[in-house]
Amino acid sequence: MTVSYKFQQLPMEKVFRDPVHNYIHVQHRVILDLINSKEVQRLRRIKQLGTASFTFHGAEHSRFAHSLGVYEITRRICDIFQRNYSKEKIGAGGWDDSERLIALCAALLHDIGHGPYSHTFEHIFHTDHEAITVEILTSPDTEVYQILNRVEEGFPEKVASVITKTYHNPQVIQMISSQIDADRMDYLLRDAYYTGTEYGTFDLTRILRVIRPYEGGISFAMNGMHAVEDYIVSRYQMYVQVYFHPSSRGMEVVLEHLLNRAHELYHTEQQSFLATAPLLLPFLKEDFSLDDYLRLDDGVLNTYFNHWLDTTDPILSDLAKRFLNRKPLKSCRFEPKTQENLLITMKEIVETVGFNPVYYTAINSSFDLPYDFYRPKSGKHRTQIELQQKDGTLLELSKVSPLVAALAGQIQGDNRFYFPKEMVDQTLQDNYDLFGETYQLFASHIRNGELVE
Amino acid sequence: MTVSYKFQQLPMEKVFRDPVHNYIHVQHRVILDLINSKEVQRLRRIKQLGTASFTFHGAEHSRFAHSLGVYEITRRICDIFQRNYSKEKIGAGGWDDSERLIALCAALLHDIGHGPYSHTFEHIFHTDHEAITVEILTSPDTEVYQILNRVEEGFPEKVASVITKTYHNPQVIQMISSQIDADRMDYLLRDAYYTGTEYGTFDLTRILRVIRPYEGGISFAMNGMHAVEDYIVSRYQMYVQVYFHPSSRGMEVVLEHLLNRAHELYHTEQQSFLATAPLLLPFLKEDFSLDDYLRLDDGVLNTYFNHWLDTTDPILSDLAKRFLNRKPLKSCRFEPKTQENLLITMKEIVETVGFNPVYYTAINSSFDLPYDFYRPKSGKHRTQIELQQKDGTLLELSKVSPLVAALAGQIQGDNRFYFPKEMVDQTLQDNYDLFGETYQLFASHIRNGELVE
Amino acid sequence: MTVSYKFQQLPMEKVFRDPVHNYIHVQHRVILDLINSKEVQRLRRIKQLGTASFTFHGAEHSRFAHSLGVYEITRRICDIFQRNYSKEKIGAGGWDDSERLIALCAALLHDIGHGPYSHTFEHIFHTDHEAITVEILTSPDTEVYQILNRVEEGFPEKVASVITKTYHNPQVIQMISSQIDADRMDYLLRDAYYTGTEYGTFDLTRILRVIRPYEGGISFAMNGMHAVEDYIVSRYQMYVQVYFHPSSRGMEVVLEHLLNRAHELYHTEQQSFLATAPLLLPFLKEDFSLDDYLRLDDGVLNTYFNHWLDTTDPILSDLAKRFLNRKPLKSCRFEPKTQENLLITMKEIVETVGFNPVYYTAINSSFDLPYDFYRPKSGKHRTQIELQQKDGTLLELSKVSPLVAALAGQIQGDNRFYFPKEMVDQTLQDNYDLFGETYQLFASHIRNGELVE
Amino acid sequence: MTVSYKFQQLPMEKVFRDPVHNYIHVQHRVILDLINSKEVQRLRRIKQLGTASFTFHGAEHSRFAHSLGVYEITRRICDIFQRNYSKEKIGAGGWDDSERLIALCAALLHDIGHGPYSHTFEHIFHTDHEAITVEILTSPDTEVYQILNRVEEGFPEKVASVITKTYHNPQVIQMISSQIDADRMDYLLRDAYYTGTEYGTFDLTRILRVIRPYEGGISFAMNGMHAVEDYIVSRYQMYVQVYFHPSSRGMEVVLEHLLNRAHELYHTEQQSFLATAPLLLPFLKEDFSLDDYLRLDDGVLNTYFNHWLDTTDPILSDLAKRFLNRKPLKSCRFEPKTQENLLITMKEIVETVGFNPVYYTAINSSFDLPYDFYRPKSGKHRTQIELQQKDGTLLELSKVSPLVAALAGQIQGDNRFYFPKEMVDQTLQDNYDLFGETYQLFASHIRNGELVE
Repeated sequence: MTVSYKFQQLPMEKVFRDPVHNYIHVQHRVILDLINSKEVQRLRRIKQLGTASFTFHGAEHSRFAHSLGVYEITRRICDIFQRNYSKEKIGAGGWDDSERLIALCAALLHDIGHGPYSHTFEHIFHTDHEAITVEILTSPDTEVYQILNRVEEGFPEKVASVITKTYHNPQVIQMISSQIDADRMDYLLRDAYYTGTEYGTFDLTRILRVIRPYEGGISFAMNGMHAVEDYIVSRYQMYVQVYFHPSSRGMEVVLEHLLNRAHELYHTEQQSFLATAPLLLPFLKEDFSLDDYLRLDDGVLNTYFNHWLDTTDPILSDLAKRFLNRKPLKSCRFEPKTQENLLITMKEIVETVGFNPVYYTAINSSFDLPYDFYRPKSGKHRTQIELQQKDGTLLELSKVSPLVAALAGQIQGDNRFYFPKEMVDQTLQDNYDLFGETYQLFASHIRNGELVE
Repeated sequence: MTVSYKFQQLPMEKVFRDPVHNYIHVQHRVILDLINSKEVQRLRRIKQLGTASFTFHGAEHSRFAHSLGVYEITRRICDIFQRNYSKEKIGAGGWDDSERLIALCAALLHDIGHGPYSHTFEHIFHTDHEAITVEILTSPDTEVYQILNRVEEGFPEKVASVITKTYHNPQVIQMISSQIDADRMDYLLRDAYYTGTEYGTFDLTRILRVIRPYEGGISFAMNGMHAVEDYIVSRYQMYVQVYFHPSSRGMEVVLEHLLNRAHELYHTEQQSFLATAPLLLPFLKEDFSLDDYLRLDDGVLNTYFNHWLDTTDPILSDLAKRFLNRKPLKSCRFEPKTQENLLITMKEIVETVGFNPVYYTAINSSFDLPYDFYRPKSGKHRTQIELQQKDGTLLELSKVSPLVAALAGQIQGDNRFYFPKEMVDQTLQDNYDLFGETYQLFASHIRNGELVE
Repeated sequence: MTVSYKFQQLPMEKVFRDPVHNYIHVQHRVILDLINSKEVQRLRRIKQLGTASFTFHGAEHSRFAHSLGVYEITRRICDIFQRNYSKEKIGAGGWDDSERLIALCAALLHDIGHGPYSHTFEHIFHTDHEAITVEILTSPDTEVYQILNRVEEGFPEKVASVITKTYHNPQVIQMISSQIDADRMDYLLRDAYYTGTEYGTFDLTRILRVIRPYEGGISFAMNGMHAVEDYIVSRYQMYVQVYFHPSSRGMEVVLEHLLNRAHELYHTEQQSFLATAPLLLPFLKEDFSLDDYLRLDDGVLNTYFNHWLDTTDPILSDLAKRFLNRKPLKSCRFEPKTQENLLITMKEIVETVGFNPVYYTAINSSFDLPYDFYRPKSGKHRTQIELQQKDGTLLELSKVSPLVAALAGQIQGDNRFYFPKEMVDQTLQDNYDLFGETYQLFASHIRNGELVE
Repeated sequence: MTVSYKFQQLPMEKVFRDPVHNYIHVQHRVILDLINSKEVQRLRRIKQLGTASFTFHGAEHSRFAHSLGVYEITRRICDIFQRNYSKEKIGAGGWDDSERLIALCAALLHDIGHGPYSHTFEHIFHTDHEAITVEILTSPDTEVYQILNRVEEGFPEKVASVITKTYHNPQVIQMISSQIDADRMDYLLRDAYYTGTEYGTFDLTRILRVIRPYEGGISFAMNGMHAVEDYIVSRYQMYVQVYFHPSSRGMEVVLEHLLNRAHELYHTEQQSFLATAPLLLPFLKEDFSLDDYLRLDDGVLNTYFNHWLDTTDPILSDLAKRFLNRKPLKSCRFEPKTQENLLITMKEIVETVGFNPVYYTAINSSFDLPYDFYRPKSGKHRTQIELQQKDGTLLELSKVSPLVAALAGQIQGDNRFYFPKEMVDQTLQDNYDLFGETYQLFASHIRNGELVE
């Protein structure tokens, strides 16, 4: 008698060596098949941190590695839940292990819709990685769909509903997506490991020791409060120090201008693009299929930028060169409310010495909320972190942690004005004889990294 | 008065955060300019481990990161030599710190000639990364050359002579290239860190504590014998466990067949390639310039493989698919001397069920010498590792280490026969009804991973 | 010609392998001699964390290891200051390297006056480890004094003045003692390493990269703000999670009662103590010399407790047994202002079932200020942490860090009521038949770890 | 209905934070009770590495921590065996989980018979820690016995039979004692962690992945060969670099002479010892009970050495001072077969300048066999390490590992002659005027750390 696909265990557990979790353990045939699908393998060719690897050269890890990591953390949570907090053991609010496979699939596939340099790409080409994730999960042509559908009819849609947070079981949803979920836990640890920064490290083992299910989702034992607190602080540190790093954003704005320029040129002189960027054409045309999307990766974009070094458009080729050779725009902080006019002046100066400010200056603002509790009137609802006391009652985290209270609802980040390095580096100013005073004027408006009158 | 370029120090030491060495410290303007050159930046787009990242998903680090690491170790050695073993202090055999800049440049640039998937690429297109390194260093058009030449006339050639081992000072040469050099030390530590294996780890701090210059090059204090011994063992472990991993080699043979097929097709039907792989054309034509070479990277090849998914040649598109979607050929060990005929039989079986054995089988042998002492009659000369006793006399490592003696001159590795996974995985055999017995015959010739009669 | 003792360098740098700092490097003969002195060697027999090792079994490291660690961090700071921020380089506010030896000696010897279980011992026997440190440094009979005095006359007193913070150079004082000094940095890292907790870890390398001298003492470069912030958070975490752990304090109160009981018994029946605790006698008599003090260590006290297992006083022998066999008192939190009467009731219950509340209950409060800025009206002055901007102006840390602002001036800790485990563990209640209801009454006053009406 | 003691699980798993294994997990009440017994708690007061902590100051960890570690590794092995290789799953040769408790108890208690500075103490006082372990397990008065006996009658004897290797199940015996067992695995990792050396580190996770039971005991999957090989190499490295360190042995010989001198003095003038060393008396008398033995610990011996500083015997007080203040004897290697006469000469020289060679010189030889396979004629039988091939057949390790083959049966270690540091350090020679030539003669017989004619 054959076991149905849904329940097939590998004869021998398969492992993937992983520097963050030591080993990724795979026990289900379904999971192994998903890992081997072309849609998941494609994630090997997309960097997890995009342009941040230009600042942290060690951080060249892919979304594939991250996806395995999220899967592994979820698997461990399921193990702990099943061992100690099953419905059989603790009744209502306990874990139902028949949810395991759906949780594992959702964990592994949660980022499947990401494309190259997602943030920027989405902005220019109006794609949405979450919507595409759902599309990949539920389109009959994808390998992922075919594997999921073999589990049972409707299974692909169920996995998709975890991503869209409409699944009936909040425990499964919150494992994958909440303020302290397998996704965030993996990327903080992984990004810390690969950048080589220590501040992103928190104590995963300890958090897994205190995580518990309850009827409303996931909570943490009160005696694990400091472990959770430490996670929030690590998250804050990674944002302000790694994710918001000014140089990475200086590369991001170059990329944005570069793709924008290509987009514009397509409409004016599309012929030359036909040969140089075939896989990007559908997006320049704004008429693409899911299959078109799945052909893209970091290497494809970089290769087309490489091709564009030879185009006749000087802006396109120059921006491509700056991107490939890592020449980020430089920046200073500014105050949006009061320095609008000064920004205009600065752009004019940039233009004076010969740069088109549309392509060679930018405003970039990075902000994040390290943690927030429930605010009835807030637009975006966030699942707050709940601590479980001995008698089962819940307490929201910021009520007991002075550190988290300090961060809760506090937006972190800054506003930056970007401009060519040539504006402030005299060794690059080959027209200094003509524009010396202009350059000096520009420099005089920046002090201690801030824009000043 | 301006300081000459050669001696320009950065006003403030510049650091790059690195997970292996914590920080890479840059003090010379020359070094910073080299790092920012397009030839060095290009190394960001070439993976250090090539197809091994298909087996060790964490190991997606680039040759750029490795190059910085080799530079950093060399810098630390120079610091130690200058502080404790300068010519001023210990006389002849001591370190001359005016050699520092040349050592640092050679360290940073030693891999500059590497291209995408070097090993395979070189094999197919008859390139040689060491020769290209020298060409990049000494061709007036490269940014690297221009920076080096600003230091002083003849400086590019001097750096090149370190690479070719013709430089006059053996200490500088052995820092960069010997059986225990900055190159090997960085890649063992880095590859161990990124693969997540522990066996590649050795105690760099301790080795740096006992390294000392002598007239003939680099030696190690006797009391550091065990640290050096541990390094040799780590090297052995990384080779047999990571670098020779059968799955990575299973991807390598796919890649080799894929590039070979493209090469052949170019000669028969080159037109269709003009559009799909412009930057590869000069190589298919076997007429390429240095500039052509410097346009290549992993992403370029992968993108062209992606384009080839749509070609009409079924072998080319199938192999491209196998490579992009990570479908390595499977393998078993065999005995070259006695199993030649059996190999022929196995290939015939592969052909029977429908695979062209030219493109779907392969022989792959991986071998390395973890350590060797000087053998007058050996073809390839290796610098042996010397230990320095209290009275200054030298002793060759394997004379005092039973572990190293066990490994010295012993070639490690194996011979493998590669074939499609379809041959042994029944879930993939859609023609099993027809060829069931053939498949069984094939399987019967493999036992415990070895080819048997 | 012989070099004066003060300037004697070891012919070969001597190293001590250290798990926290990798190596402790000793270059001066003075330092090596101090390490080999009997007063410093004695620190090997005194645990750094006292009773905390009963909770964290891995943390059995000694004050000797910590002293070496503080020395090593100080040495590294001196190296950095000398290399980059010497008076010669940056003028007034720069580092004067002739201060190095005094800084190193003060660092190595800052804890030399500590005795066994310092906190408790001092409380019972009215000793003061800081005063004793000064006494050891300046008493002609100690080996430490003799070594220091060989450096130059008055040198012992100079080192002592660093400890008492009256030395003329605030940079030297703040290296050893400030809110972010070599002492705190070593013990946080070391205690985290040995307890196996990760939350005490901060990025020492990065802090050392941004530390700089200025006229008023030690400051940190603005771009190191987050590294300093992370240190403050680690400090907070170690306090609330390790140093204030309720079980360690449960052992501390046992120890306190035990030493108190011995003190009392001496006055009533001193004879029996003459033989069992000779080295403790001077303290029981309250008439001790420095030499008496230097004979004590953890093992001496533990051995006497061991002897006391055989005394006829049932309280003394029982408390000794509880201490040696690790039977801490249990505890619950309480509110000092409002629960005074309830505490009286609880003690009465403890007495009812047969325990003398004087020796079997206790109040223990642990509090710490993770960080504070200057408060003119505060009794105890603390050196605030200063950040240095590009133009040299200073900013106090909590002004730029929301995390530190949240912790600044906020006292952390709790008040606990301690009682025998027998009160709440039924398996230990051999008189439950008689006192069942009393035990239940006791238990009813504790909920979720807190005292309730 | 109450669960029998044997099967009682803690309501909530109890954990101990451990720096080596992260957490020690305790699930059985029996285990928790054993940990809390006075015999196990006593191990907190005995250092794991004895005099080695005088060389590696970080290595002050206790036998208590090691015992928990051995328990934890055994627990993990049981988990793996039960999950994957139970008798139910793989039939004969599989794991019977009813053996778990006995394995855990034996693991936790395997070192319970160790006393202070075991190696030396046993030598002088003719004790035997393995025999005492058995005695503690099976003597009705110990807490350990009482707990074990509550499990079921005969259980204490069963646990003892695992220690004496007469238990019927070789899997249980080999878990605790074989050439690759939980004991060795924990101490190698733990000692490496606490000394701060990296060479003792091997990949425990990977070894646990490949460990499997078979009828004859414990084996390892063939694909884990390199992990096992790495463990053997680590073991070799720890022996030659840590356990055999000449300075630690220089302290050991001081300790040996000190205890020997005390032993002799007892017979000649025992009165003075009655007061100073009460707990040591039974051993000096050579008439001690198990209870006497259990009163001893490192602190007790050190305290008595401290008392002896004041005795009138100059040799006893001087050796006590050398031990407490860490003044090891110095040493050089020698060749036992050919240098007997030279040793006599050296001792005479030592005597000439005023040292009694009986107490101030010593011969110390340290040897270990890193690994051995079965040798029918060898006196001491060792369980060889077996690798399991896919078809279940076993292969002995050294047959497939060139590294292990190099070490197998090869005894590592050296013979050393110890003498006072005064013999070679001129700053300590206060009678140099008289004996200058004698000192020079002594020094002339040592070259490059070896004894020469």
